[in-house]
Amino acid sequence: MAFSAPVTEQAFVLKHIVGIEALSQHDRFADATPDMVQAIVEGIGAFAEGEFAPLNRIGDTVGARLKDGKVVMPEGFVAAYKAYVANGWGSINAPSAFGGQGLPFSMATVALDSLGAANMAFALCPILSVGAIEAINHHGSDRQKQLFLPKLSTGEWSGTMNLTEPQAGSDVGALKSTATPRGDGTYQIKGTKIYISFGDHDMAENIVHLVLARTPDGPAGTKGISLFLVPKYQVAEDGSFTKANDIKVVSIEHKMGINASPTCVLAFGEEGECIGELIGPEFGGMRAMFTMMNNARLNVGLQGVQIAEAATQKAIWFARERVQSAKASGPSRESVAIVEHPDVRRMLLRMKAGTQAIRALLYLASGYVDRATLGEAGAQEMVDLLTPLAKTYGTDMGSEIASLGIQVHGGMGFVEETGAAQFYRDIRIAAIYEGTNGIQAADLVGRKLAMQGGDVIRNHLAAISQDASDQPGLSALSAACAEVTEYMLSASVDDRLAGSYAYTNMMSVVTAGWLMLKQLQAAQTEIDAGDTSPFLKAKIVACRYYLDVMVPEAFAFKGSAMAGADLLYALDAEDLAA
Amino acid sequence: MAFSAPVTEQAFVLKHIVGIEALSQHDRFADATPDMVQAIVEGIGAFAEGEFAPLNRIGDTVGARLKDGKVVMPEGFVAAYKAYVANGWGSINAPSAFGGQGLPFSMATVALDSLGAANMAFALCPILSVGAIEAINHHGSDRQKQLFLPKLSTGEWSGTMNLTEPQAGSDVGALKSTATPRGDGTYQIKGTKIYISFGDHDMAENIVHLVLARTPDGPAGTKGISLFLVPKYQVAEDGSFTKANDIKVVSIEHKMGINASPTCVLAFGEEGECIGELIGPEFGGMRAMFTMMNNARLNVGLQGVQIAEAATQKAIWFARERVQSAKASGPSRESVAIVEHPDVRRMLLRMKAGTQAIRALLYLASGYVDRATLGEAGAQEMVDLLTPLAKTYGTDMGSEIASLGIQVHGGMGFVEETGAAQFYRDIRIAAIYEGTNGIQAADLVGRKLAMQGGDVIRNHLAAISQDASDQPGLSALSAACAEVTEYMLSASVDDRLAGSYAYTNMMSVVTAGWLMLKQLQAAQTEIDAGDTSPFLKAKIVACRYYLDVMVPEAFAFKGSAMAGADLLYALDAEDLAA
Repeated sequence: MAFSAPVTEQAFVLKHIVGIEALSQHDRFADATPDMVQAIVEGIGAFAEGEFAPLNRIGDTVGARLKDGKVVMPEGFVAAYKAYVANGWGSINAPSAFGGQGLPFSMATVALDSLGAANMAFALCPILSVGAIEAINHHGSDRQKQLFLPKLSTGEWSGTMNLTEPQAGSDVGALKSTATPRGDGTYQIKGTKIYISFGDHDMAENIVHLVLARTPDGPAGTKGISLFLVPKYQVAEDGSFTKANDIKVVSIEHKMGINASPTCVLAFGEEGECIGELIGPEFGGMRAMFTMMNNARLNVGLQGVQIAEAATQKAIWFARERVQSAKASGPSRESVAIVEHPDVRRMLLRMKAGTQAIRALLYLASGYVDRATLGEAGAQEMVDLLTPLAKTYGTDMGSEIASLGIQVHGGMGFVEETGAAQFYRDIRIAAIYEGTNGIQAADLVGRKLAMQGGDVIRNHLAAISQDASDQPGLSALSAACAEVTEYMLSASVDDRLAGSYAYTNMMSVVTAGWLMLKQLQAAQTEIDAGDTSPFLKAKIVACRYYLDVMVPEAFAFKGSAMAGADLLYALDAEDLAA
Repeated sequence: MAFSAPVTEQAFVLKHIVGIEALSQHDRFADATPDMVQAIVEGIGAFAEGEFAPLNRIGDTVGARLKDGKVVMPEGFVAAYKAYVANGWGSINAPSAFGGQGLPFSMATVALDSLGAANMAFALCPILSVGAIEAINHHGSDRQKQLFLPKLSTGEWSGTMNLTEPQAGSDVGALKSTATPRGDGTYQIKGTKIYISFGDHDMAENIVHLVLARTPDGPAGTKGISLFLVPKYQVAEDGSFTKANDIKVVSIEHKMGINASPTCVLAFGEEGECIGELIGPEFGGMRAMFTMMNNARLNVGLQGVQIAEAATQKAIWFARERVQSAKASGPSRESVAIVEHPDVRRMLLRMKAGTQAIRALLYLASGYVDRATLGEAGAQEMVDLLTPLAKTYGTDMGSEIASLGIQVHGGMGFVEETGAAQFYRDIRIAAIYEGTNGIQAADLVGRKLAMQGGDVIRNHLAAISQDASDQPGLSALSAACAEVTEYMLSASVDDRLAGSYAYTNMMSVVTAGWLMLKQLQAAQTEIDAGDTSPFLKAKIVACRYYLDVMVPEAFAFKGSAMAGADLLYALDAEDLAA
C-alpha cells in the first residue's frame, strides 16, 4: 500500500491545537487563510505521496554514494528535489523579504510532516537548510541575507550545520577548527567536521555550510567559538559563483539507516583556499548555533511523527490483509484478518494513539514558535519548555511505534522487502542527533526548569490540572509531575540529572495527554454538531486509549525521577564492568 | 574491546538461581561436579571469545550467501563450527545413551549464553539442532534415535524446524505441505516452507529437517498434522549417505539482522524424490512440535541475554573511554569520561541490571527443565509457566538494552562500524520467531493461567510475596500481579487477550525481581563472609537498582492488563485507518 498523507488529521490538529485561525488574524500571517491552509496541507500531501514516497526504498537500498570525491544521490532524487523547489515547498515559512512565503512555521511543520513520512532521509535535507536560514536571518548582515537567503529559501541552494568534530560531540566547546583572518574581513577556515548531514550532494546548485570554528587568541571552550558561512562555491556580489572552496568530502558514513542522507566527513581548507565569513559577532557562535538548532530540534522530534505515521499506516494495512487463525473467543473457527485479534488491535491502537499524541505535541510547539514570532507574551518560554519534550518524546515514541510496526508484521517485519524494518532503522538516529535525548533531558532540568524560578513549568502544569479535573489519570499524572518539579527545584545537580530522563518522559506524557484531551473534546463537539465522519470516531477512540492506558504508564517514572544519584555512583566506573 | 564471557556471573547464577549443586546430587546429573561445572563455564567462555566473537562482524557484513543453489557461510565459519564440534560443545546435554554428555540443560544454557553473546547469528544453528534432538529423543523410534541422535548430538549433522508456510505462520494449522505414503512406511514430502533458519549451509555434513506436513485424508487444522524427519542426504542403516533428497533452496531472505543465519525458503519434493519418515504417531505433529519448540523458546529468550550482555560490555567500555564535557555538578571544569555523567550512568546501570535480571530468569527456567527431567513434582509446571515469561521479557529487554547501547555511543552508535547497531538489528527478530511475543502472552493467559485452576501462578506469586516481605516495591508488585491474575481467571477470552501482554510483562518483572532479591541476599552473605570481590559489590548495586527502579515501573501495566477489550473493538477494522 502506498503512503497516504494524513491531511484530515493535520488540518484537525492545525485547527484545534495550533489555533491556526487565530494566527491568521495577525497581519504577519494574514496569508494563512483557511483556503490557503487547506491548499497547502493537501498540496504537500499529494506531492509527498507522488514524488517523495516512491523514492523511499531506493534511498535505503542504493543510498547516497561517494564517487570521485562527490556525493551522488540515488536515481530520482535530483528530479524530485527540483520539483520540490519548483513547487515552492521549501519556502513556506522563509522570510517574505527574501523570497519566502512568510507563512507560519506551523505550516512548514505540516509540510515536513508529510514529506518525511514519505521519505525521512530525503526530508532531512530541507531541515538543514531551515537551520541555515534561521541562523542567517537572525544573526547575518543585510548583505548576507540578500545574497544567501533567497536561494536558500527556494531550496536552489541547501544548507548544512557543521558542529561536530571527532573529539567534540555533545561537548561543542572541545572543537578545534580554526578561522584565521585573511585581512579583508574574511577568514581561512581549516579543520575536519564529522556527521555532516547532506554535507555534499548533487541536488542543489550550491551548499551553504555554517561552520563553528575558533578565531586566533579567543578564549577556550564555548566562549571562543564563532559561526562562519562557508559556501561550497564562493559567491560574488551579483550572486554568481567565482570558485570552489577547498572542502573535501573525506568519506560518508555507513549507517544503520537514513541511507539516502549522506553523512559526511568534511575537511575544510586542509589543502587550499577555503574562505568563510562571520555570521554575527566574533565569539557569538554558541548563540547563533542555538538559533540554528532550536527549530531543528523540533524538526527532529517531528521525524518521530513522520515514521510513526508511516509505520502505523503500513501496519494497519497489513493487519487488515493478513489472514491468520480464528478469533480465540469464537464462535466461528474461520480464520480472520489479524486486525481482529485483541493483541494486534492493542498494538495498532497504541501506534495510532502514540502517533497522534506526538503529532499534537510537535504542532503545539510549532504554534508557539509562531506566537513567539508575533511577540505574544510567554510564547518563547513555551517554545523553550516544549522543545526538549517534543524532541525526546517524539523520537522515543517514533522508535517504539516503528518497533510495534515490525511486530505486527511478524516474520515479514524482519525481512527488508516489507519496509517495516527500514522505519525502525531510520528513526533510531533521531534520539541521537541535534542533541541526544539525554542532553535534552539535561536541558529540561537545567535551563528550562529554572525559567522564572520554576514558574513556567508550574503554570503549564496548573493549566493541565485545571483542564483535567474530570480525567483521573491525567490529573493524577499532573499532580505527580508537580511533585517531581518541586523536588527537582531543590535537588542537587547530580540528583536532578539522575532523574532527568524519567522527568522528561512524565512531562512529555502529561503534555501530550492534555492535548489528546483537547482533541477528544473538539472531536466530541463536532460529532455533537452532527458530523459523522469515521475520522472523528477514530479520533475519540485514539484519545481515549491514550488517556486511559498510556497516560497512567507514565506514573512508573516518578520513582526513577526522584531516586537521586547515590545508587548510580555507588560503584566506581571500573567496578561497573565487574 | 573484545567480548569477554561473563564467567563469574554465570557461575554465580548457576549456584544461586539454578541450584546446580543440588542437581548434581542426583545420579542423572552426577557428572556435573563443581569442577566440571567450572571447567565448562570457563572453557565455553574462552571458546566463544576466541572462535565465535571474531566472526561476528564478518557474519553481519558478508552474511550467508546463496551460490548455485547452496548456502555458503562467511569465511571462518566452517572452521569455527568444526572446532565447536571437535570440542564437544554441542553435546553438553545431549542424551548420554546417544553420544551426548548427559549434563544438565542449564549447562547447555550457559554454553549458549556465551556462544550467542559472541555471535548470536552463528549460535542460532545449534539451537535448531537442539530442537531436532529433543523431538527425536522424545517421539522418535529406537532406530531413529540410533541413526540420527549421535551425529546431531556432536553437531556433525545439524537440525532445522520446518513449520512456517506463506499462509501459515502463527496459524500452524493452515499449513498445506503433504506427506504421501510410498508403501514402504516412508512418505514423499511435498511443499514449500519459509523462514527456515540454517535450512542449508556448508558447516555440517548433513542437515536433518523436521517437517510438519499433512498425510492424505487427515482432519483439517492442527489435528491432521504430522512431523517428518527429512534429511538433506538420505541415510542408510549403516549411517552412510545414499542419495540427496530433492530439497531446493529457493532463496534466502534479506533481513535486518542475523545476516550470518541463512533464512531459507525450502521447496521439498517439488521435482523429485524427497523421502521422509514419521516422528511419532501420525497426527502427532503438534505434540512433537511443542517438544521441539519449548526449549527453543527458552533458547530464544536467552538470545536476549546474549545481546544484552554483549551490548552492555561494549557500552561500558565505550563510556569509560569516551571523554566529553566536564561533570555538570563540578567543581572541576576538566572533561571526564562520559561514564561519569549521571544520565549515562543511569543507562549503563539499567543495562547491567536488566541483563542480570533476564539471565536469572532464563537460568531459572533451564534449572526447572532439569528438575522436570528428574521428575521433581511441580517442576514441569514451572517450566510451562516460565517459558512465555522468559521468551517475552528476555527478548524485549534484549532489544531495550541494545537500544540503550546505541544511545550511550551517541552518533557512533548509528554508524555500523561500531557494532552497537548490529546488536540492535540482530536481536529484533527474537521477539518474533519461535512464537511471537504476542503468542507467548496468549499462551500465558490461556493454557498457563489455567494450570491447576490458576494455582500454579497463585503459588508462584505467594512464594515471591513471602520472600519479598521487606521489599516494598516487589511485594506491592506481587500483590498487583495476584489481583490481575484473579481478574484474568474470571475475564472473557477477549478481555484476557487484550491485557495479556501487560500481564506477561508484570509477571516477568515480578519473577525477575524475586531472582534479583535472591541474588542480592546471596551476594550479601558472601560479602559478610569476607569476600571483597568487585563482582559482588557490583551485583549488589545492580540488584538494588532493579528492585528500586525497574520493579516499580511494572505497576504501570496493571491498568492496561485490566482494561478489557471494549475500547480495542470500539472501532471496526476499516475505521482504524481513518
